[in-house]
Amino acid sequence: MPELRKDPIIGRWVIISTERGKRPTDFTDRAGPRRGSFCPFCPGNEDKTPPEVLAFRNPGGRRDGPGWQVRVVPNKFPALQIEGDMDRRAEGLYDKMNGIGAHEVIIETPEHECELSLIPIAGIEQVLHAYRERMVDLRRDRRFRYLMLFKNHGEAAGATLEHGHTQIIATPVVPKRVQEELDGARGHFELKERCIFCDMIAQERQDGRRIVVENDEFLAFAPFASRFAFETWLLPKRHESHFEEGDPGRHPALAQILRATLTRIGRALNHPPYNFILHTSPTNQAHLDHYHWHFEIMPKLTKTAGFEWGTGFHINPTPPEEAAEYLREIEIQEGDHEGRTHHLDAER
Amino acid sequence: MPELRKDPIIGRWVIISTERGKRPTDFTDRAGPRRGSFCPFCPGNEDKTPPEVLAFRNPGGRRDGPGWQVRVVPNKFPALQIEGDMDRRAEGLYDKMNGIGAHEVIIETPEHECELSLIPIAGIEQVLHAYRERMVDLRRDRRFRYLMLFKNHGEAAGATLEHGHTQIIATPVVPKRVQEELDGARGHFELKERCIFCDMIAQERQDGRRIVVENDEFLAFAPFASRFAFETWLLPKRHESHFEEGDPGRHPALAQILRATLTRIGRALNHPPYNFILHTSPTNQAHLDHYHWHFEIMPKLTKTAGFEWGTGFHINPTPPEEAAEYLREIEIQEGDHEGRTHHLDAER
Repeated sequence: MPELRKDPIIGRWVIISTERGKRPTDFTDRAGPRRGSFCPFCPGNEDKTPPEVLAFRNPGGRRDGPGWQVRVVPNKFPALQIEGDMDRRAEGLYDKMNGIGAHEVIIETPEHECELSLIPIAGIEQVLHAYRERMVDLRRDRRFRYLMLFKNHGEAAGATLEHGHTQIIATPVVPKRVQEELDGARGHFELKERCIFCDMIAQERQDGRRIVVENDEFLAFAPFASRFAFETWLLPKRHESHFEEGDPGRHPALAQILRATLTRIGRALNHPPYNFILHTSPTNQAHLDHYHWHFEIMPKLTKTAGFEWGTGFHINPTPPEEAAEYLREIEIQEGDHEGRTHHLDAER
Repeated sequence: MPELRKDPIIGRWVIISTERGKRPTDFTDRAGPRRGSFCPFCPGNEDKTPPEVLAFRNPGGRRDGPGWQVRVVPNKFPALQIEGDMDRRAEGLYDKMNGIGAHEVIIETPEHECELSLIPIAGIEQVLHAYRERMVDLRRDRRFRYLMLFKNHGEAAGATLEHGHTQIIATPVVPKRVQEELDGARGHFELKERCIFCDMIAQERQDGRRIVVENDEFLAFAPFASRFAFETWLLPKRHESHFEEGDPGRHPALAQILRATLTRIGRALNHPPYNFILHTSPTNQAHLDHYHWHFEIMPKLTKTAGFEWGTGFHINPTPPEEAAEYLREIEIQEGDHEGRTHHLDAER
């Protein structure tokens, strides 16, 4: 059973894998994932993953067989374990609990070589439907407080398998980083009676310099205090606190802007490794006026080093205004299928 | 002039390099630092760095000439700039100020190939003296609130030059991560009237499972909620809030335990990349009863990925009890010069 342990000084939780603890020799092979080796996510290998919890497949296809477009399975090596009680307890000064949670993998496409930005928009819509369905389902488990959806693309961004996938980890505590955003956003709301994300959207659209791309429903921009070079956030223009409560009728517009953003980043930076994460409201909260869900896309172009770990500061070598300009100016070719991108409005 | 920008939601500061902003093509060469290429830190190349601010050299040696054992120079490409005013200002919702600060490099040895753990103990003592002298001097500049001392070893840990060096960045704000530790430690002190670090030292020495090595003055242990596999903290056993106020007479004992810890990590993990950082009290604070300076040594064995960035959680694949046991059991050879290591006391 993995353990959740709390740092006694700053209250940060850490997941400790107590069962299959890595020995020193497990770290000394510094080779990356092997290209061309066996892929458990490819069609035909469905029996190499735990049984699926969701799949969109052609009519007549059988469960855990091929013929799917998107497939969701429990992670074979989960960070947190689905069965058991939390059993919160002390060890002298320290606090710990059992590592209860869920850890699922959304396989985005049957095609091994097809990274997310290359999937046609209709396929990305299905990926978004899968995100939503799994979040709606996992939210019913009252032990969980938060659903963290994230994607690691490329070895330097922490991906251990090449085949395109997103992960969801359900946690029994609200993560520190999310709680900080919730607290900061509530503070702003108490002062202004406005959502800080809505305020940022208004200021960014007025200013224009940090906008990457937008459409009728969504905005992608480089945040003013970007931690990473070419960091890009993607938000619904209308206020929504929970991703999974949003209207799935807007998934085509979301798929389009997500694809447009990733395509631009891929073309500007020669297909860099990246992470994206979804920040949404905790599962046990009803609609919040002060919190606004969003994706944070973080290309991994520089190393996080001692200064960053020691301070929580980041050093960003590319001003977000310049990053956004580079991304806006990328010419999208016919073959990029970015037909529905709305470029910056002429009136701005 | 670099800019310090504040995230409007969580209050995190970011350093934006506005002057030599990196363009997309600057990131597409993914090759690491070149081995065997010109080294500005090697003796004879003193004119390739800015003029030294401190050096320990043989009698008769000339300033900015060879013959030094430790040499401190301003960083040629500083993250923050020494000259100017802070000029705090708003940009709509957002806050920013000029990136005022200091950025220095402590070159630990004249020998290019000699990493810190290979320097004889007397040489490491000199490095510690240099840390202290520079911190005492930088503390006099009233614009600075914090002195972050850190070391990046190995390319994966963010080092861009091979030759062994430590850096100090003086910042005009107390970094978020440090403020969190100060706040947490103050909370504990208010409740218990005891320093939480002193409490941890007592519990760790009683328990023994997480101790890596200790001597009369210092303790190295794997923290209960370690973020990283084989993370090791190093603290003075007696309460001290500021590193630079400590008695330099204890530098030999500190050099010995730092060397012993790095040697064990290097041998257990085949000389991994690592960061270490010094957490000490802010410069504008007098002695604090609740905060206790310490080094945090973080081997870089796994990638920080989407889950970590999104949550602030870390997933650590090696329980600290196991990591400490591996490190304790490393046999130190004669040639390792670790003669003065005190192994775990027999009575435990």
